Amino acid sequence: MGSLNGFAMAGGDGDQSYTKNSLYQRAIIDAGKSLVQKSISDYLDPKKFPPSETFRIADLGCSVGPNTFVSIDNILDVVKFKYLNINVNEIPEFQVFFNDHTFNDFNTLFKSLPPNREYYATGVPGSFYSRLFPRASLHIVHSSYSLQWLSQVPREITDPNSRAWNKGRIHYADAGEEVINAYSRQHAVDFSKFLNARAQEIVPGGLIMLILPARPNGVPHSQDPFAKNNVRLGACLMDLARKGLIDEEKVDSFNMPCYMASPHEFEQVIKQNGRFSIERMEGLPRAKASHIPNSPEDMTRGIRAVKEELIRQHFGDEILDEVFALYQEKLSMEVDLNPGTELNLFMLLQLKQDN
Amino acid sequence: MGSLNGFAMAGGDGDQSYTKNSLYQRAIIDAGKSLVQKSISDYLDPKKFPPSETFRIADLGCSVGPNTFVSIDNILDVVKFKYLNINVNEIPEFQVFFNDHTFNDFNTLFKSLPPNREYYATGVPGSFYSRLFPRASLHIVHSSYSLQWLSQVPREITDPNSRAWNKGRIHYADAGEEVINAYSRQHAVDFSKFLNARAQEIVPGGLIMLILPARPNGVPHSQDPFAKNNVRLGACLMDLARKGLIDEEKVDSFNMPCYMASPHEFEQVIKQNGRFSIERMEGLPRAKASHIPNSPEDMTRGIRAVKEELIRQHFGDEILDEVFALYQEKLSMEVDLNPGTELNLFMLLQLKQDN
Repeated sequence: MGSLNGFAMAGGDGDQSYTKNSLYQRAIIDAGKSLVQKSISDYLDPKKFPPSETFRIADLGCSVGPNTFVSIDNILDVVKFKYLNINVNEIPEFQVFFNDHTFNDFNTLFKSLPPNREYYATGVPGSFYSRLFPRASLHIVHSSYSLQWLSQVPREITDPNSRAWNKGRIHYADAGEEVINAYSRQHAVDFSKFLNARAQEIVPGGLIMLILPARPNGVPHSQDPFAKNNVRLGACLMDLARKGLIDEEKVDSFNMPCYMASPHEFEQVIKQNGRFSIERMEGLPRAKASHIPNSPEDMTRGIRAVKEELIRQHFGDEILDEVFALYQEKLSMEVDLNPGTELNLFMLLQLKQDN
Repeated sequence: MGSLNGFAMAGGDGDQSYTKNSLYQRAIIDAGKSLVQKSISDYLDPKKFPPSETFRIADLGCSVGPNTFVSIDNILDVVKFKYLNINVNEIPEFQVFFNDHTFNDFNTLFKSLPPNREYYATGVPGSFYSRLFPRASLHIVHSSYSLQWLSQVPREITDPNSRAWNKGRIHYADAGEEVINAYSRQHAVDFSKFLNARAQEIVPGGLIMLILPARPNGVPHSQDPFAKNNVRLGACLMDLARKGLIDEEKVDSFNMPCYMASPHEFEQVIKQNGRFSIERMEGLPRAKASHIPNSPEDMTRGIRAVKEELIRQHFGDEILDEVFALYQEKLSMEVDLNPGTELNLFMLLQLKQDN
């Protein structure tokens, strides 16, 4: 599969678009709102950043909206409040950078920008595992439900000669230790690149706030509900292979480039990097059940908006409807669709002053 | 027609795209290269902008490339050279803002960004007749072949009750004085807004470089070859109306939102604004004939890539092929396709220090 320059959420604003099928991700943003706002309130020191200078915020992995606009508004509300608290007459001008892969649908994002926004909006194409911004130019970096995506599938798991070859599966939760370790190593490499890039780009005292699906310390991967989604999807693809609709070898060479790391794994990489202090690391409060899609149909639409592009790239257009019909069928047969054991992790990191 | 948020060059990278049919605009950039580079060389003082700070460049009205990348490279080459001349060890990091209307095809622009670019690229959607950037954040503003587009068609010329009603025409070159004056006033209002916005956004000592089709002082509009293109296009639309293919009233209410101002008109607005000094204002050397599309077919493709979206919005898809077939036919019957009387104007403005 190689690197993932071409991977993006479903574009446009049609019925199957991410724009119309990202209610779960929106519920997560709502669940994280108070943590995000409290973090800014507690850790942003506006005296360090005079209001005469532009205050810059980036949302990394923003996709096509509207969720990213909600996140930015949540952030801006508190930042403005902090400035008004120290100086009633002046708040800085804000510039917001919406980032995602080059193949993200920026046209749709730009057309749906809030008309009354109180910031200068820009789009930044490219992988957040590399430098995207000039040095010391960002005050707040935010990323929600993006950093679980790796920069690539670990190479060894698609190599038939490797002990980590992931034959007949598309993810790690139902695989052996070699596969899990390959994913874990890729995550450590990628997250380390992420921190290195951001350490250059953020001003001392600036903040990173991350929200992502994670795995509780000590819980085996096989019991992680996020990873289970991919096991289910892999089973659908294998069913199609058995029916002769797709090549089994095609399934062998397809893997989901995402990994649910544990808080311990994140901590390790952050400490090794050494440039950021961990100010908060905790699970989000559970999203309101009423806000989360919970019928098999709605859950399938949400999963499809996120994952169909990857499947399309590898298997072609033709099988998409069949794969997700099967997915919905399998979901319908499961007893408890919302087991409530998932961990959505919130992290607040601050760039150390000593540089 | 109202304001022009929806207007853009033909998107994508197909046969009729602006990407593939902007050779004339490219020839203009080449013809202006030495003026652009000499202007930076003579007027940019790198000592005012320490290399530890990001150096920011904006291309306003960038469309979809590749021309905008050529312009940026021309600029960057000299800026880097200037820094290396004063300090061999350090040049700033560069951030480049590609701006165009919200409905510009930014997806195509982003996919075609030069892979080895030496700058951080961002896209900025919105009209350059309003604020687009935080205050004092830009060092160089460049715009090529964009500022001839007005923010809107002057209202009075589409009003049947106005003396400036432009019945049976789509532009001003073949119209009476009231129509011309309405266009001229709209241009003055728009260019003034442009300067006001840029005066906020540019750092003192920063530069604006503009290249645009203009009309030599004293030459009547009826003899301006740029305006003549629109007279020709209007004649095509009236032919279709006479054939009953479109409503004549539709033609009455359609007008091209562009104006070829004279150097005197630009000077007046710049002086009234008062924030910029005019450091250079002169015609470009003539573009190399070999680089300019000069067959009726190629010229028509170039015109179509620029203007078809406006026609589509007003008349619908169906008539596009017919309109431009007719346009090509009319061009073929003209004696001299390159009369050489056009003025492509170059302007260098510098933001005054006293703010």
